[in-house]
Amino acid sequence: MAIRDGVRSSFVIYVALFLLGCQDSVKGHFLSTSKPDRHDAAASARWLVSQNSWGVLNTLSSDLGGTPFGNVVSFSDGPYDKGTGIPYFYLTTLDPTARNALKDQRSSFTISEYPLGTCGKRDPMNPACAKITLTGKLKELEENSKEAELARNALFTKHPEMKGWPKKHNFQFFELEIEDIFLINWFGGPKALTVEQYLHHRKDKSNSIQWMPY
Amino acid sequence: MAIRDGVRSSFVIYVALFLLGCQDSVKGHFLSTSKPDRHDAAASARWLVSQNSWGVLNTLSSDLGGTPFGNVVSFSDGPYDKGTGIPYFYLTTLDPTARNALKDQRSSFTISEYPLGTCGKRDPMNPACAKITLTGKLKELEENSKEAELARNALFTKHPEMKGWPKKHNFQFFELEIEDIFLINWFGGPKALTVEQYLHHRKDKSNSIQWMPY
Repeated sequence: MAIRDGVRSSFVIYVALFLLGCQDSVKGHFLSTSKPDRHDAAASARWLVSQNSWGVLNTLSSDLGGTPFGNVVSFSDGPYDKGTGIPYFYLTTLDPTARNALKDQRSSFTISEYPLGTCGKRDPMNPACAKITLTGKLKELEENSKEAELARNALFTKHPEMKGWPKKHNFQFFELEIEDIFLINWFGGPKALTVEQYLHHRKDKSNSIQWMPY
Repeated sequence: MAIRDGVRSSFVIYVALFLLGCQDSVKGHFLSTSKPDRHDAAASARWLVSQNSWGVLNTLSSDLGGTPFGNVVSFSDGPYDKGTGIPYFYLTTLDPTARNALKDQRSSFTISEYPLGTCGKRDPMNPACAKITLTGKLKELEENSKEAELARNALFTKHPEMKGWPKKHNFQFFELEIEDIFLINWFGGPKALTVEQYLHHRKDKSNSIQWMPY
């Protein structure tokens, strides 16, 4: 019985480690907020943006004749649970995305729920595995402005590695000024969601459901 | 000693489960090939494309005045370890991406190494965490053609859920005809890699290094 007890208690410990460790391996931190009720489009959109740390930023390629050019970037809309909904970026003109945006600000930013690990066994393209595309203008923030300070705090909190990125690469802060939102978080097509509803969403008014891995 | 042995053996089992399970939660299958030597650009690019199951497909939005519109999609370049390097998609015109492509084929497809779980503790935007953008033309494949059959096999092998997607949504097979490759898999800017080098890469000629979680 002593052996069985030992095995059983170690089982509990390692299953707990397994569940915790998997989340950590997926996104580098524990989900800080449970997944919102899918009927609340604003809450779902804000949750997706606040819980993710990277996405694909799309601009019009000046090198490739105006072809849409997606690029993997890190972003932040604020510290976890204190997000504003506005995605901030730290970009260098050594990379095409910043160069493109300085010539034509039209842009979109795309995020998937899939890498959060909360889609269970669903395919990444299953409508119940949420995805969002924020469309608008990608704007460089004026150095030492209040907005640049907000962006710095938002980004360096979620991406501490950025603090050490080479000064000579001349990274600058950018913001996506959102004009349109494309959100799918269930079957039945995109959810109706205005930019105002998204930006003015207050988390304390949302219903949320407990996150379950499957 | 018997208790200690029991605990020790269960520790080994659960740590093994932990490591296996984490990979499974990230991408739904085990990495089938070890990560290639970073100096081999073609091998790195083909590895990224063959090991991933989803990415962001960018088109020019006909609804939003030509803004680049990124959309989360599932894709496949063939069964694991038998990929062709060509990304195939299963799209419906109920979604804007297919509608956009039918009006203007200019497109790009972006994939990150980050969700594979092989970037260790690096930030998703760290150049050593690889990313690729394939730029070209997004083309609908003729129904019942040889290419459509290739696409079907490639997609339905990696995404079995697709077989059950609603017939009335009229999903069709699409292919990205690649014209340009933007690959970053280390410091020092994008790697020089032609479409020909990428498509004609032979895996048996590559050096690969053993994948390590950190």
